[in-house]
Amino acid sequence: MTPTGGAIAADEQTVSALGEFGLIAALSGWLRSISPADPRPLVGIGDDAAVLAAPDGRVVASTDFLLEGRHFRREWSSAADVGHKAAARSLIDIAAMGAVPTGLLVALAAPPDLPVTWARDLTEGLAAECARAGATVVGGDTASAGSILLATTVLGDLAGRAPVLRSGAAPGDLVAVTGPLGHAAAGLALLEAVHTVSPTDPPAWAASLVAAHRRPQPSYDAGPEAADLGATAMIDISDGLLADLGHVASASGVLIDLSSDRLSPGAGLQAAAHALHPFLGRTERGSGPRHAQALAWVLTGGEDHALAATFPPGTVLPPRWDLIGTVREGDGVTVDGQPWAGSAGWDHFRG
Amino acid sequence: MTPTGGAIAADEQTVSALGEFGLIAALSGWLRSISPADPRPLVGIGDDAAVLAAPDGRVVASTDFLLEGRHFRREWSSAADVGHKAAARSLIDIAAMGAVPTGLLVALAAPPDLPVTWARDLTEGLAAECARAGATVVGGDTASAGSILLATTVLGDLAGRAPVLRSGAAPGDLVAVTGPLGHAAAGLALLEAVHTVSPTDPPAWAASLVAAHRRPQPSYDAGPEAADLGATAMIDISDGLLADLGHVASASGVLIDLSSDRLSPGAGLQAAAHALHPFLGRTERGSGPRHAQALAWVLTGGEDHALAATFPPGTVLPPRWDLIGTVREGDGVTVDGQPWAGSAGWDHFRG
Repeated sequence: MTPTGGAIAADEQTVSALGEFGLIAALSGWLRSISPADPRPLVGIGDDAAVLAAPDGRVVASTDFLLEGRHFRREWSSAADVGHKAAARSLIDIAAMGAVPTGLLVALAAPPDLPVTWARDLTEGLAAECARAGATVVGGDTASAGSILLATTVLGDLAGRAPVLRSGAAPGDLVAVTGPLGHAAAGLALLEAVHTVSPTDPPAWAASLVAAHRRPQPSYDAGPEAADLGATAMIDISDGLLADLGHVASASGVLIDLSSDRLSPGAGLQAAAHALHPFLGRTERGSGPRHAQALAWVLTGGEDHALAATFPPGTVLPPRWDLIGTVREGDGVTVDGQPWAGSAGWDHFRG
Repeated sequence: MTPTGGAIAADEQTVSALGEFGLIAALSGWLRSISPADPRPLVGIGDDAAVLAAPDGRVVASTDFLLEGRHFRREWSSAADVGHKAAARSLIDIAAMGAVPTGLLVALAAPPDLPVTWARDLTEGLAAECARAGATVVGGDTASAGSILLATTVLGDLAGRAPVLRSGAAPGDLVAVTGPLGHAAAGLALLEAVHTVSPTDPPAWAASLVAAHRRPQPSYDAGPEAADLGATAMIDISDGLLADLGHVASASGVLIDLSSDRLSPGAGLQAAAHALHPFLGRTERGSGPRHAQALAWVLTGGEDHALAATFPPGTVLPPRWDLIGTVREGDGVTVDGQPWAGSAGWDHFRG
């Protein structure tokens, strides 16, 4: 496409041309050139294993997949978007325990014809999102596969805090959330609808919703903040608010009741529901099908990576935490005292 | 195949019938029922992240892929074999740093039609291999994929030791190895040859070689032992002796020279080379093509997961460590002072 032959060759070089050791060397070099100097691992990429400081004497760890076709499409997300998203999905799991992320390990399987530039941009996205969270990419593995697959493992430090589990919610507790709800699901629906018409970007007013799908921006420091405020339970909203609060309710042996008037979809979700009305299946709930769709995104849309937590009665919460309900005796999750009739979130094996 | 309808139904249940949350619940239940009581993670499977003790104040971490079609075939390895192998590949990376493995996280992508019994047997293999190393399965993730893919991340504790890197070898050091060399490669070649004739097991005399491919049994405690003996560099032999010692030579800025008379293939490898002679490409090296093939397995066969280490001159090594060469000034790896002319190991993107 460009007249500069050298640039073409560089742009079109594939990971198979580098070979496995060449790719690992390239990944290491990119990370050295773009990673912040701190926090520096004690032993980084290039040995049998990484060594990180764990000053608390405990280490927090979590693993997540990010799969092409399932969690992203190369035609809808840039390589940097995918790197940010893969890192964010893992990093927020550490925050949801009340801990601070320290290091990320990345297992990357990719087709041999993947452009080297794509791998480089992915790496930069991973490193940049880690830097947002105060962490560093410290290791990984590569393999050849038919499509792109990332398995990210994040480590974190509790800095003396007790981990905030899913099992500590008690009747009377407040339920609060920080971060967007339903934006990523609406953004994905917009991308799907637009691309059924033509391979273009959604309209400008939808940019923040599409960005929420492509590159969620969790508030990592909200996790330790909640722990310091005495949170009794906490969870990352990855599968949808109802599904994830269902895990808290089940683990804690309680009922969580949400107030729909605290979950009103914002103008962006309303506009998306309006614009997508011709594309979406009809529902008859709520104050009309368009409002019902917007509320469904809030309640069941996954991948925003907001944090939900329960707090003892009377806790004074910082402004970024929105009260959305209360904990009661019983089991399950209700909205205004009633079970929610719609879908309850993602299931990777059935979805 | 059996007349008991109920048993058939149970045996043939697939992971898609369980669903993602059902599969995770089943995996957790199997692990609780089969894992040893100690070491117990502070927070185990079922929350956003696991919490493990890191008494040293540092944590060692490594991630590895194990891919169907690349590292195993379901028709050649049992599910338990695959679990043992996936865990062993990761656990030995921790030992190669001089550390003790503590916990394993497992990301499992599998086809929706995978039998639940296969997932259960895999889990038992993972847990049993962790128990061999003194570690516990503490978390993971699941996803749907076209073939089985495992990404395992292992954590470990240095217990006050300095990590043994690849970069510390110095001229004059001894080079030693513990564990089999070439057995897994010969076992895989036997499986490939036998299955080109009929789908049967290799002959009984080949059982230990085939087992080395299916279920490597690394000596995890040899890693901390080497560290305590003053090892200057150490590496897990996963890609082949020459390739992996090449990493040590490169990182340390030295030449490693191996003595072929210390690397003589044993009777099993000789027998395999003899039996496979009709199937293998001819070579003209060494004392005849069959000996050359057996020696090639020793020098370039991957996946045995032996440990190689360098030690200061005069170190008295326990019997399980075999002296195989010396460190000199220069660069690269030689055999009897000469470059090795054959293939130097696996490359996942070119292989």
